[in-house]
Amino acid sequence: MISSTANAQIKYLVKLQEKNAVRKKEQVYVCEGQKMFLEVLQYARKDIVKAYFSESFYREYQTKNGFPNLGNFEEILSKIPFEVVADAVFREISQTVTPQGVLAVVRQPEYSLEMLMGGVDGQSSRLLLLEDLRDPGNLGTILRTAEGAGMTGVILSRESVDMFNPKVIRSTMGAIYRVPFVYVQDFITLLDQLKVCGFTVYAAHLAGAVEYDIPRYPARTAMIIGNEANGLSETAAQRADARIRIPMAGKVESLNAAVAAAILMYEIKRQERENMRK
Amino acid sequence: MISSTANAQIKYLVKLQEKNAVRKKEQVYVCEGQKMFLEVLQYARKDIVKAYFSESFYREYQTKNGFPNLGNFEEILSKIPFEVVADAVFREISQTVTPQGVLAVVRQPEYSLEMLMGGVDGQSSRLLLLEDLRDPGNLGTILRTAEGAGMTGVILSRESVDMFNPKVIRSTMGAIYRVPFVYVQDFITLLDQLKVCGFTVYAAHLAGAVEYDIPRYPARTAMIIGNEANGLSETAAQRADARIRIPMAGKVESLNAAVAAAILMYEIKRQERENMRK
Repeated sequence: MISSTANAQIKYLVKLQEKNAVRKKEQVYVCEGQKMFLEVLQYARKDIVKAYFSESFYREYQTKNGFPNLGNFEEILSKIPFEVVADAVFREISQTVTPQGVLAVVRQPEYSLEMLMGGVDGQSSRLLLLEDLRDPGNLGTILRTAEGAGMTGVILSRESVDMFNPKVIRSTMGAIYRVPFVYVQDFITLLDQLKVCGFTVYAAHLAGAVEYDIPRYPARTAMIIGNEANGLSETAAQRADARIRIPMAGKVESLNAAVAAAILMYEIKRQERENMRK
Repeated sequence: MISSTANAQIKYLVKLQEKNAVRKKEQVYVCEGQKMFLEVLQYARKDIVKAYFSESFYREYQTKNGFPNLGNFEEILSKIPFEVVADAVFREISQTVTPQGVLAVVRQPEYSLEMLMGGVDGQSSRLLLLEDLRDPGNLGTILRTAEGAGMTGVILSRESVDMFNPKVIRSTMGAIYRVPFVYVQDFITLLDQLKVCGFTVYAAHLAGAVEYDIPRYPARTAMIIGNEANGLSETAAQRADARIRIPMAGKVESLNAAVAAAILMYEIKRQERENMRK
């Protein structure tokens, strides 16, 4: 059992959670909490590098002898490396106010742009593009909604918040394990690439000429959402095939970025379902 | 100038922000930050009880002689009571990490259920009903979206988070001054009242029988959103005229409450706009 905060693994876990650069170098991230651990066991078990349990969590699950629907605790643990950590030390590595006593180091998934784009031959693909999105809670919520709306994947500009930030991971509610995403070095070049590959690129814009429910979104649709404070860059807005607008009543200046993304993704899905009913 | 944290007004401001009970007793709330202050000046100036400026904020605006689009600083201040507070003391009363140096005590608006329901004679009214919503950020975002979607107002169960909680106010981005809302003692009785008054009551429910874009929402529509963790109460779900469901792809178990509310409110608005185009 690890009983000192001076332990090298403990220091490593703290760094992994606090520093994007360390996560990037090591190509891993940390997921915390019982729900997230259950989900990683279900959807990304082979990517678990090591799990860490607080002493009381470990004892409790030994007694219970398992996780609901996931089988025997000892059997699960026989397949993944793990460490037990003294409760006081666990509190040090936890990013939450009331730690649930479980945390795992997980290998970062790798997705390719080609896979997200679904080839060049016109295969159906619905992509959400995020330009410099900054708020971790927004990004997590967007990924969760993207899964619900059946989007193919999410592409982010290099300057957007890190998907492996612990706050992002928590607010994805597990979508992090299932929705493919890619960061691109050059966001504007990406837009051109998408157009070449048969995508129609829409940009959510406060001054958009068309209301969001007017276009008939094609099978290859890409939708850009901009930065929370400044919206889209002029270059990205110009490069899009169409700038669309979510109408707003009252005196509200803009919608929350995760809300705007949700309305747009679910409109794409609604049209798809409407077409299927016809 | 107030230069001590022992000052009675300073203690009062701290209590007002931390304690719902104190806000309720005093029938006021605190809004903080430059944007929120500009909005309160525009939309609820007569409700300002007193404004508090940090010394550096006050000096800066005296020099600039005003707020953009709101006119002369001295002229604005001649009409509202205010105090200047030493910067160090202001940091104590601020709820933010980097205080912007302006905060106001504002009288709580009072709205009536009758006004929200728009009479019993079938006047158009779109209401969002929140049953035990708990997260301040969600509530603020929902109010902001409700304004954008042109909802008539929001009705909350008594157990829902307090609308005058500083985190809620911040995330409304000003909608707090403009969207009418009412807390009710008995949420289930409210549902019956609404039905008597000609409303069709819809409940967002994971096991809803109808997908959310199938009903044609009538001019008097009420939509219930439940608690983040537990969803709707069984009683509320039973009492609704229809239980509707937002379809979800993938393995996602539910959507964020503010996201679900946004999709539903914007679907109501979309249908309204579609009808107008016909």
